[in-house]
Amino acid sequence: MISPVWFENDKLNIIDQTQLPGVEVYLQLETKEDVWDAIKKLKVRGAPAIGVAAAYGMYISVRDLQCASFEDFEQKYHDIKEYLASSRPTAVNLFWALDRMEKKMYALKASVDNGICIVQKMMLNGSGSEPLESVSPEELPWQEKQDYITNELLKEAHLIRAEDIAACEAMGEYGLSLLEPGMGILTHCNAGTLATAMYGTCLAPIHLGQERGYDFKVFADETRPLLQGARLTSWELSKSGVDVTLICDNMASAVMKQGRVQAVVVGCDRMAANGDGANKIGTSGVAILAKEYGIPFYTYVPTSTIDLNTLTGKDIVIEERDGEEIYKMWYEQPMAPEGVKTYNPAFDVTDHKYITAVITEKGIVYPPYDENLRKVFEKDEK
Amino acid sequence: MISPVWFENDKLNIIDQTQLPGVEVYLQLETKEDVWDAIKKLKVRGAPAIGVAAAYGMYISVRDLQCASFEDFEQKYHDIKEYLASSRPTAVNLFWALDRMEKKMYALKASVDNGICIVQKMMLNGSGSEPLESVSPEELPWQEKQDYITNELLKEAHLIRAEDIAACEAMGEYGLSLLEPGMGILTHCNAGTLATAMYGTCLAPIHLGQERGYDFKVFADETRPLLQGARLTSWELSKSGVDVTLICDNMASAVMKQGRVQAVVVGCDRMAANGDGANKIGTSGVAILAKEYGIPFYTYVPTSTIDLNTLTGKDIVIEERDGEEIYKMWYEQPMAPEGVKTYNPAFDVTDHKYITAVITEKGIVYPPYDENLRKVFEKDEK
Repeated sequence: MISPVWFENDKLNIIDQTQLPGVEVYLQLETKEDVWDAIKKLKVRGAPAIGVAAAYGMYISVRDLQCASFEDFEQKYHDIKEYLASSRPTAVNLFWALDRMEKKMYALKASVDNGICIVQKMMLNGSGSEPLESVSPEELPWQEKQDYITNELLKEAHLIRAEDIAACEAMGEYGLSLLEPGMGILTHCNAGTLATAMYGTCLAPIHLGQERGYDFKVFADETRPLLQGARLTSWELSKSGVDVTLICDNMASAVMKQGRVQAVVVGCDRMAANGDGANKIGTSGVAILAKEYGIPFYTYVPTSTIDLNTLTGKDIVIEERDGEEIYKMWYEQPMAPEGVKTYNPAFDVTDHKYITAVITEKGIVYPPYDENLRKVFEKDEK
Repeated sequence: MISPVWFENDKLNIIDQTQLPGVEVYLQLETKEDVWDAIKKLKVRGAPAIGVAAAYGMYISVRDLQCASFEDFEQKYHDIKEYLASSRPTAVNLFWALDRMEKKMYALKASVDNGICIVQKMMLNGSGSEPLESVSPEELPWQEKQDYITNELLKEAHLIRAEDIAACEAMGEYGLSLLEPGMGILTHCNAGTLATAMYGTCLAPIHLGQERGYDFKVFADETRPLLQGARLTSWELSKSGVDVTLICDNMASAVMKQGRVQAVVVGCDRMAANGDGANKIGTSGVAILAKEYGIPFYTYVPTSTIDLNTLTGKDIVIEERDGEEIYKMWYEQPMAPEGVKTYNPAFDVTDHKYITAVITEKGIVYPPYDENLRKVFEKDEK
């Protein structure tokens, strides 16, 4: 199974997604500048994947710092955090991961102060059964404490990645329970392994199914204007050996009418409390076609992406992007008259009435969503 | 009003549509090779426009022929017809126009044989009131007869063009009666002036409305994979001063949901007896969205395109085209992995149940189409 971001041989590895699908370039990121550049230039993209890259990025940026004291380390840590956060100022997961790493760093500092690190250090050295050295936390040199903190930060980054993989696998298992071998499945955009640490959200059941001989026939919408379906989904599914057919967005109706699609799976960028879901532009149209042709429409959404404070899809603000993405960006020459007016919304909202089921890492949610999405969170609280 | 094909100063003029929307290049076609090349290379495209170009093309190819006899002329005429027909072997209107010109040529030959041309020749010379010269058809030299025939063929080409413009204008008037000033109108592909002699089919009411201050707000689907909406529709509507906004195909649902669309207008490549209509790929999806959002969906179809011998849309064979159009043709670099499987149907069939009304040059047809389309033709027969 491909992962777009992983840590190996003391280095952060990524697939350079800007080179896909033409060339498979793997990069090793060794400095904070490498990480900043990779996020900035979309070499790593997809909310969860960015979060994982930022967490490891924080670790590789602080591990070799030369600091005289915690205050010195703290100052440098903050500067690096601010620097990495500036790489993509609208990526919520970037801040989430950096905040989590910082919270961990302060928790580790507290451990250091009350001596926990010393115990842990000895246990790690295999001397856990022997009596503790009688050394007080104050006596330990700062560099030794810092090494302990940074090593633990690496573990936290590993944990963030592992949690993402586990959530994706869970969504994959729940999602797979809704599908049958041999089914035709249509997807839009890329909510795949390339957007997460591994497996993806809505593509997770397809990857899992492939490992288990489900033999799905997948139709990938190319997903204009940024072509994530053509460039990324068809690449990662081909790579996993899945039978994938690339179509233009406007061909979805034709393949559905021909009886070649038995389920639609899509991701979700933000879900309101009533089940309305914002996702890549075009998703709402696919949902309406699915309803008309009697095909189940499944939305995959990690619970972190469900916002109970947003009551309905009307409250979700849609990002509008530059029209050049439509008529200029990819082309050898502009494909519309100079100065043409465009409308280029990045997302649209799929009304909850078109969504057959919502698949989260905690289970499958069915309508009525305004009641049942809330229950997913209540379970946690109990 | 722009025309993509017209005759002026003894020359056939076209807009080179392969250069649009980047550059406005006007070509003068003077030889049969020019005409063949223009049709072959899609410099002129759209069924009616190709027909008009072929009719004029036949004239400019035969007008200067040096022939010893009718048999000589006939042989050369046939060779040229065959040559022009080979320019685009699947274009029905190309053969239709060439056949009509040939039928006219034989009718003119019959006139020559019974002397009608001599009368007409004298009338043209302003001597119609004087007694006819006592010259028998046999005495007239062949070259004079040939000049008469070719001049009349030019008139036939003019007639073909005028009939197309009249049909488009009629569709425009009928269509306009269904629309209100200020409406938002969505269209797919290019059934515009560039595809006909003038006005277009489904864009005719928009051009006419523009001349009358209707102030429509048009949304043009870019229409993947060949981008006729981006390249042609947005160009010709901008040129006419229409307020046009280019969107990707997958954005139609979003603009409809926002209440910005009050009518959808599309062309039709072939309509079955029950009202099922084949048109550019994606049309059926737009129709389903329109129904879901309660927006009227109007199909524009010249009666020549209604085929009562095709009972339903299921009997219409859909052309499948090369997948490179999807992921390679327009791009600086391929937009999908090497060897990706694609499905690239050129058309899809819109079920008649989604069509609010069919607009023909003979009037507006409402459901039930299986009864009412037939009546359009019965009217003619009476």
